[in-house]
Amino acid sequence: MAATRFEYVRNFEQPTTLLRNTWIVVRLDGHGFHRFSKEHQFAKPNDVRALHLMNASAAAVMREFDDIALAYGQSDEFSFVFRPSTMVYSRREAKIITNLCSLFTATFVMQWPQFFGSQPLSYAPSFDARAVCYPTIANLRDYMSWRQADCHINNLYNTAFWALVLDSKDPKTEQQAEAILRVTDSAAKNEILFTQFGINYNNIDPMFRKGSTLFWRKQDVEEVSAKTGQPVVRKRNVLATEYVDVIGESFWKENPHLLSRGKQRE
Amino acid sequence: MAATRFEYVRNFEQPTTLLRNTWIVVRLDGHGFHRFSKEHQFAKPNDVRALHLMNASAAAVMREFDDIALAYGQSDEFSFVFRPSTMVYSRREAKIITNLCSLFTATFVMQWPQFFGSQPLSYAPSFDARAVCYPTIANLRDYMSWRQADCHINNLYNTAFWALVLDSKDPKTEQQAEAILRVTDSAAKNEILFTQFGINYNNIDPMFRKGSTLFWRKQDVEEVSAKTGQPVVRKRNVLATEYVDVIGESFWKENPHLLSRGKQRE
Amino acid sequence: MAATRFEYVRNFEQPTTLLRNTWIVVRLDGHGFHRFSKEHQFAKPNDVRALHLMNASAAAVMREFDDIALAYGQSDEFSFVFRPSTMVYSRREAKIITNLCSLFTATFVMQWPQFFGSQPLSYAPSFDARAVCYPTIANLRDYMSWRQADCHINNLYNTAFWALVLDSKDPKTEQQAEAILRVTDSAAKNEILFTQFGINYNNIDPMFRKGSTLFWRKQDVEEVSAKTGQPVVRKRNVLATEYVDVIGESFWKENPHLLSRGKQRE
Amino acid sequence: MAATRFEYVRNFEQPTTLLRNTWIVVRLDGHGFHRFSKEHQFAKPNDVRALHLMNASAAAVMREFDDIALAYGQSDEFSFVFRPSTMVYSRREAKIITNLCSLFTATFVMQWPQFFGSQPLSYAPSFDARAVCYPTIANLRDYMSWRQADCHINNLYNTAFWALVLDSKDPKTEQQAEAILRVTDSAAKNEILFTQFGINYNNIDPMFRKGSTLFWRKQDVEEVSAKTGQPVVRKRNVLATEYVDVIGESFWKENPHLLSRGKQRE
Repeated sequence: MAATRFEYVRNFEQPTTLLRNTWIVVRLDGHGFHRFSKEHQFAKPNDVRALHLMNASAAAVMREFDDIALAYGQSDEFSFVFRPSTMVYSRREAKIITNLCSLFTATFVMQWPQFFGSQPLSYAPSFDARAVCYPTIANLRDYMSWRQADCHINNLYNTAFWALVLDSKDPKTEQQAEAILRVTDSAAKNEILFTQFGINYNNIDPMFRKGSTLFWRKQDVEEVSAKTGQPVVRKRNVLATEYVDVIGESFWKENPHLLSRGKQRE
Repeated sequence: MAATRFEYVRNFEQPTTLLRNTWIVVRLDGHGFHRFSKEHQFAKPNDVRALHLMNASAAAVMREFDDIALAYGQSDEFSFVFRPSTMVYSRREAKIITNLCSLFTATFVMQWPQFFGSQPLSYAPSFDARAVCYPTIANLRDYMSWRQADCHINNLYNTAFWALVLDSKDPKTEQQAEAILRVTDSAAKNEILFTQFGINYNNIDPMFRKGSTLFWRKQDVEEVSAKTGQPVVRKRNVLATEYVDVIGESFWKENPHLLSRGKQRE
Repeated sequence: MAATRFEYVRNFEQPTTLLRNTWIVVRLDGHGFHRFSKEHQFAKPNDVRALHLMNASAAAVMREFDDIALAYGQSDEFSFVFRPSTMVYSRREAKIITNLCSLFTATFVMQWPQFFGSQPLSYAPSFDARAVCYPTIANLRDYMSWRQADCHINNLYNTAFWALVLDSKDPKTEQQAEAILRVTDSAAKNEILFTQFGINYNNIDPMFRKGSTLFWRKQDVEEVSAKTGQPVVRKRNVLATEYVDVIGESFWKENPHLLSRGKQRE
Repeated sequence: MAATRFEYVRNFEQPTTLLRNTWIVVRLDGHGFHRFSKEHQFAKPNDVRALHLMNASAAAVMREFDDIALAYGQSDEFSFVFRPSTMVYSRREAKIITNLCSLFTATFVMQWPQFFGSQPLSYAPSFDARAVCYPTIANLRDYMSWRQADCHINNLYNTAFWALVLDSKDPKTEQQAEAILRVTDSAAKNEILFTQFGINYNNIDPMFRKGSTLFWRKQDVEEVSAKTGQPVVRKRNVLATEYVDVIGESFWKENPHLLSRGKQRE
C-alpha cells in the first residue's frame, strides 16, 4: 500500500510556536457555562462544589505539567502560568493548549461525583483554551491582576444581584435587580449589601472574593522515616491552594520563586 | 478597582485564523495511549470497546458542530472534516481545536462505563488536537487515504504481531515477533496469518481493517406520525458509522454531498 | 570566539509559511505616494511615465520569479500571482514579500531616468508588500476583479475631479470638485465628463481605465536563424502587457494557461 | 460597478503581528551578493565603498523610523533594533519588514553613484528581510554578539584567504587557500597573516573587524544662533556610526539609553 503517495499531506501543517523566553499563560474558559450551571442547579452567586471541582482539576493539570509556576482560577475559568524557560512540547501552541485543556476536562468529569455526590452530569461539559505570551514579570503580574480585578468586580455585582433576587422578604425580579445595580459603583454595592442584607462583603468567603491561586511551595511535612520508623519533618514541595490578593506586593514577596524565569535552555 | 489599568494585557493575544474556503481537518490523538491501553487491559491487537467508545465520542462531537462533513477514526485517533464554508468560531484555530478536543474528552470519560462496564478509569485520559487546512478535494481525499493506509499498515502488522505473541502453541516474545516481522512485506504478513494461524486477514472485522467513517446521510426512517398515530417513512438526516474503503472512488460517488464545499459566506 | 554561545538566538525566529496548493498573491503599494506624486509633479489624473515605470518594474520582477502566472497594476500598486504549485523560498512569507518588494523598488529607482528623463528623484520612494493566499480559481478571479473594479471607480472619480479642477474656463477648487462629485453615481460622472468637457470616458487610454495586466504568452516571434542567417518565425514565451478587462470571461478563455495550478510537487 | 461583491477577498488576509513589549530585530540580507560583488568588482576581502553605501542606506532607514534604537551592519547584512515600546505599523510584521527593506534598497540604488562614482550598477540589487522578537535585554545583547562574532570569524577567514590568493610573490589558487585554512583556528590564521604577510590583524580597519554600529547620541554640536548670529554649542541628537566592540560591557555602559525599553503604550 503506497502510504507514501499520500503522506505529502503532512506538509500542509503550519504549527505555531510560542516565542521563547516569555511567560506562557494558558487560560481555560467554560463553554456555555451559563446554561451548564443552570442545568446543574449551581448555587448562586457562587457554588462551592463547582469551585472546588475546578480547583481539583487545575491541581491535576499542575501535577502533570512540570513547568507551571502557578495557576489562578475564578468562576468557570482557570489560568496556568508556564515559566519562560519551559520547552514543553517544544512550545508548540496547539499541543500545549489541547493537551492541557483535555486533561482538565477529563479530570473535571471524573471527579464530578466527589464534589456533586449523587447528582449526575446531565451532559458533557467542555472548555476552550488559549495561550498568550508575556515577556516581562510586570506584564505577567498585570495579567494576574486583570483576572483578579475581574473576579472582584463580577463577584461584588453577583453577590448584590442575587441578594436582591433571592431576598426572602422583598424579592426583586432579575430585571429589577439589574436596573438597581446599573447605576451603582463599588461603594454603593457594598452599602446595599450591608444596610439591606447585613452582609459585610469583606467577610465573604475569600475563595469567592479573591479566586483561587495554586502554586508549589517548599513546606515542612511530617512523615514517618522509612529507616527508623520515627516521625520526621521534611521539606517537601507541596501544592498550595490559597485565596489571596495577587494584585499587591506581599504575595509575590513571600513567594519570590514563583517569578523566577527558570533555567534557560539555550 | 482599576480593571482598565490591567486590561491592556489582552492586546498580547495573537490569535491564528484558518484560511477561508479551505477544508479544515482537526485530528485528535490519544496522549500516551500505549500506557493507557496497557493500564486498562485493552484487548490486543484491537479492543472493540475502546473503538466503540471513540466512535461514540466522535458522534457527540458531530452532533454539536454543524459544519463537520465527516469524521474518520482508527486506533486512538480521530479526524474531523469541516466544510470550506464553515465560519465556526470565525475560524479561530485555538477556539476550534480546544472546544472540539474538550467535548470529545468529556464524552469519552462520561460514556466510559457504557462500554467498559464496571471496569473503572484508573486515571484521566487525554487527547491532543491540531488543525490542518486543505484547499482542494484532491488534497482532502489524499488526507483521508493517508489515514486509512496508515490504519491498514498498522493493523496488518499488529494482527500478525499479536498472533505470534499470543500463540497458544508456540508463543513468541515481543522481541522475537518484531524480528520476524521486520523483514516481511504485506504479502508475507498475510501469508503468516493464513498458514500459521488460519486467519484470512480480509475476513477480520472491517472496523479494524478500515477504521470508522462517520457521516450524515439522508435516509428513510420509520416514525410514528404525530398527527395520525400511524407509522410513516420520512427522509431524515441520520448519522451513519461505516467501516468502508475511503481510498477508492465508490464511497465518494455514493455520497457526493460529503465533498460539497458548502455555501460560501463571503 | 564562542559564536555558538550566542547562536541560540536563531531559535527565536518564527517563520510563517504560506499554505500549500493555494494561489499566492503578493500586492505592493506605494508608501506615501500622495506626497511622492506631488513632489515629482505627476500629471493628473494619470501620469503615463509613472505607470510605465511601474509596469517596467513589474516586468523585472516577472523575469526574475519563475512561478508568477500574471501581474496586475494600477495607480501605485501592483499584484503578483504565484501559481499554487510554487515552492519559491519554500513558501516562506517574509522571504517572498521582501525579495519581491526589494527587486521592484530597485528597478523603479534604476529605471526612473528612462521614464522621467532629466527630472531627478528628489527622495527615495518605497513600497510595502503583503501576501494573501487564495484556494480556488473563483477566489483568485474575484481578487483580480476587486482590484480592477477599484481601478475603475477611482479612475472615473479622478478623471472627473481633475477635469473640474483643471478646467481652463471655470476652474473649481478641490473642495468644490469634491462637493460636486460626492453626490454622483457612475452615470452622473460620465455625464459631467461628456457634457461639460466633451470627454467620452470610454475613449480614455485603456491603461488608465483598465490597469495593466502582465502575463506570459506563447507567441510567434520573427528571428534570424543562427544556422542559416535567414529570418524564421519561432514560438517564444513573450511577456505581454495588456490593458484589458479581467472581470469578464473572455480574457481567461483566451488565456487558459494562466489559471493552471501548475505541477504539484507533493 | 459592484465592487462590494468582490471585496470579500480581503478577508483572506492573515496578518501576523509581532508580540508586544519585545525588542524587534529586523535583519536585511543581500540577495545573491556573491555574484553582485563579483559583477561589480568589489575589493577583496572588504570593499570600503560598498560598506559605506550600506551604512548610508541604514542611516536613511534610521532617520525615517523613529523607534529604532540602534543598527548593526557587516558584509551585506544590516540589523535594525526597534524598542519594545514601538507600535510602528501596529507591529504588523509584513508592513514593517517590507517598508524598511524597500527604503533601504531605494537608498542603496540612489546613493550608489556617491560611493561608486562613474561605475554603473549593472543590474538591480535586492535584499530580503526578516523580523525576530527578543523579550529581554540579555537576548538582544546575545543577538548583537552573535552577529559581531560572525563578523569577526568571517573577516579573519576572508582576510587570510585573500592574502593567500592575492599574494604577489606566491599566489595560491582559491582551492589551495581553502585547503590551507580548513585546518586553522583563529590563532593560526593570525599567525599566517603576521608571519607571511606582515599583517597585524588587530591593526586592520575596525569597520572590517567590528562591523558598523549606528545609534542616536546626545552630543554637543556647534551651531550659529539664529537670534544672535553667534556660534553656540547645543545638545543635539546625532546619528553616530562607530566600529566598536558590542560584545563586552563598555559600549552598553557608555550608552545606557540604547537599552531602554521605551515608554510602554498600554
